[in-house]
Amino acid sequence: MAYFDAASAAPLHPVAREALAAALDEGWADPARLYREGRRARMLLDAAREAAAEAVGCRPDELSFTPSGTRALHSAVTGAAAGRRRTGRRLVLSAVEHSAVLHAAEAVPEGRVELVGVDRAGRVDAAEFAAALAPDTALAALQSANHEVGTVQPVAEVAAACREAGVPLLVDAAQSLAWGPVEGPWSLLAASAHKWGGPPGVGLLVVRKGTRYAAQEPPDERESGRAPGYPNLPAAVAAAASLRAVRERAAAEGARLSSLVDRIRARVPQLVPDTEVVGHGRLRLPHVVTFSCLYVDGEALLTELDAAGFSVSSGSSCTSDTLTPSHVLRAMGVLSEGNVRVSLPAGTPEAEVERFLDVLPEVVERVRARLGAPTGAPGASVSADSGAAAPDEGLEGLVVDTLGRRCPVPVIELAKVIGEVPVGGLVTVLSDDEAARLDVPAWCGMRGQEYVGERPAPRGTAYVVRRAN
Amino acid sequence: MAYFDAASAAPLHPVAREALAAALDEGWADPARLYREGRRARMLLDAAREAAAEAVGCRPDELSFTPSGTRALHSAVTGAAAGRRRTGRRLVLSAVEHSAVLHAAEAVPEGRVELVGVDRAGRVDAAEFAAALAPDTALAALQSANHEVGTVQPVAEVAAACREAGVPLLVDAAQSLAWGPVEGPWSLLAASAHKWGGPPGVGLLVVRKGTRYAAQEPPDERESGRAPGYPNLPAAVAAAASLRAVRERAAAEGARLSSLVDRIRARVPQLVPDTEVVGHGRLRLPHVVTFSCLYVDGEALLTELDAAGFSVSSGSSCTSDTLTPSHVLRAMGVLSEGNVRVSLPAGTPEAEVERFLDVLPEVVERVRARLGAPTGAPGASVSADSGAAAPDEGLEGLVVDTLGRRCPVPVIELAKVIGEVPVGGLVTVLSDDEAARLDVPAWCGMRGQEYVGERPAPRGTAYVVRRAN
Repeated sequence: MAYFDAASAAPLHPVAREALAAALDEGWADPARLYREGRRARMLLDAAREAAAEAVGCRPDELSFTPSGTRALHSAVTGAAAGRRRTGRRLVLSAVEHSAVLHAAEAVPEGRVELVGVDRAGRVDAAEFAAALAPDTALAALQSANHEVGTVQPVAEVAAACREAGVPLLVDAAQSLAWGPVEGPWSLLAASAHKWGGPPGVGLLVVRKGTRYAAQEPPDERESGRAPGYPNLPAAVAAAASLRAVRERAAAEGARLSSLVDRIRARVPQLVPDTEVVGHGRLRLPHVVTFSCLYVDGEALLTELDAAGFSVSSGSSCTSDTLTPSHVLRAMGVLSEGNVRVSLPAGTPEAEVERFLDVLPEVVERVRARLGAPTGAPGASVSADSGAAAPDEGLEGLVVDTLGRRCPVPVIELAKVIGEVPVGGLVTVLSDDEAARLDVPAWCGMRGQEYVGERPAPRGTAYVVRRAN
Repeated sequence: MAYFDAASAAPLHPVAREALAAALDEGWADPARLYREGRRARMLLDAAREAAAEAVGCRPDELSFTPSGTRALHSAVTGAAAGRRRTGRRLVLSAVEHSAVLHAAEAVPEGRVELVGVDRAGRVDAAEFAAALAPDTALAALQSANHEVGTVQPVAEVAAACREAGVPLLVDAAQSLAWGPVEGPWSLLAASAHKWGGPPGVGLLVVRKGTRYAAQEPPDERESGRAPGYPNLPAAVAAAASLRAVRERAAAEGARLSSLVDRIRARVPQLVPDTEVVGHGRLRLPHVVTFSCLYVDGEALLTELDAAGFSVSSGSSCTSDTLTPSHVLRAMGVLSEGNVRVSLPAGTPEAEVERFLDVLPEVVERVRARLGAPTGAPGASVSADSGAAAPDEGLEGLVVDTLGRRCPVPVIELAKVIGEVPVGGLVTVLSDDEAARLDVPAWCGMRGQEYVGERPAPRGTAYVVRRAN
């Protein structure tokens, strides 16, 4: 079995396990109490805070332990926005922030959220971000690296621009903190221990001195008033110990995993036809690589890979509760069907990556065959069971009705019929699947066909494509 | 060493330790993922939810795991109040709820909090609580048992009255859930695992079907949308396993601890003069007993007991950050100085309780001696260093100026000088210590002197006492 989903949760680090067991013995009492069990717990908590602060690069009294990375982000967004309520209600975020940031920002009373877009590699442009800052901006937020595609953001530049504009910057460092501190004059930072091999149940919230902050949770004196509730002290101790441990090996292990990722990035497109590696090739996390496969159902691909012994995740619409492609892939404008994120835990053996590359082509092939996906030259029609239909009311060219059918069917049907119209002719794909909005244009880009645009149809949406070759 | 503060945090139960270790091995992956590590985690989480729900007496889909009991209470109050926003904004709470309930209620937007008082034993009157319910009551809250004095509340009767009035009742079951389910038609329930020997970092929030609830945290699909963030799955598994384990021995262990508590309740007043046992003698938790000692500094008492090997907590003002006596003792109107809460963890040996009873008299004696407390007959003046002063502007009788001095000094000085005025004469204690408001009348009650009342003074407050014997 190979677990390749470290960006969701890393297995518990041995140092975390050991620290947790010790802290459960020594640190179960309430650190606010004056008796010896309480004093012992307080000492452990103080030491954990110091170790975590050193790894983050902040003062211990700027760091609070929270119940999770999500709660740290929620508190950071709501607390910082409330602290600057008089300045304004605008929140400037990258479009590819974690949903915890986006949801918290949307929940800010009278908040106005402005999203800064990303390029096709998922990267924010620092100048564009800086230009979005205005006098009434209460808070800006930018992740250190993207959780779905691994692209590293220009946080130091954006932090400098925010400092210049007098706007506090929140950095979601969940994906990168294991690899090193976040550079630049940021104001708030959040992270999650189980991303680096710490236990679940603990996150970090850092609020730099001088940052306005008004906690929105009911008052509670623990953790500087920023994380109500009895602290999960053993988890905090284990989190700090394991962060220190992973940092000691971060440079070496990062380089090793990065070369494995390079191998996947280079070989997947060679081994698997009609595949797009997404995310930045160079400015990226060491351990994350994401690609999408045309004509593939993401959920089926995950299931097949699981059966073959590989645990990965996907941003495809069929793997989400809402049946929409991940907002990250949408913001990047890249193919979402057959999407796979590989995130290697520390210590992943090279042989597992090789075995993944061995297995992947047959797995994709199998899923495509089951869906009747085209396998020949671009635009070749391969199936008699084509979805092509007679022109519908007001629709242009050859109309392919895929209403009620989910990703990747609309794109498969498009690929099947494109050869049936002359070069310069139109195909209209009728679809009510959200993924088509992303995947039809992405297919055109990959295939060298011209994407004309979308328009509302009596049922669903009409996506119009002109055959260019 | 004897740890007698189980009501703050119980040491980890061996079953919790074992379940935690197993769940860290088997349940570290994201239970929302489709691959095998995720499915395994999901199975563990489902099983934990079923076991916890069975112990609570609810359906598994009514129960969410939260990061702590505090967070469960915060969510319950804000979520239930928001769900009934259209009905009204009034919140009816007992005056002795946990501060997490009181603070969350005060934080409800436009909420109006109405407190229902308690008797001197700390018990709510069910009829009085029912009478406080009104058509615009959004939510009522009543603890199953008090965390400071152990008094059990009439939850079943109050729940029935709430049901009758169409008002949801939230029960804070943190202190009692180890001993059995909460009876009656309550609507919401909260609890905290580390109170029963589960690990820190996990609480329970139960929202019964049909209860209006609008989560006030940013949206998150986990735990029925009621507890955002990556779940602390290993802790949830350990919490459920240990709850089941403590319940199996609850009847026998409860009876055993209860008889030890009876022993403390009976013998402390015999062994230590000028002591008041507070809380209900019969309608109480099996493991909690609280008493207050006249002329004693709570912090000094805790320190001495710690040195003698006993870890207890206190509701005295000197042990709180705000230098005010616990709101529970205030609501009960009982003496707050020299307050000690003993809460016995499961398995406490009888010999430790005996040793506590052996040690306590000398410890109290030592603290009193250091403070120059009166030791003779009621009203005897024992010290040349009396605080008695000449009558001040407009103040009545003999004036004792204790401005700037903390509990228990004002009461000690009062006791020293009461013999200096004739029967029927007045003593005025000038104090700026919050504890005096509670402790001067309490002293009068214990000493058979007449408490006349308080009035504002040029500095501090004047507490007036008439010598009655």
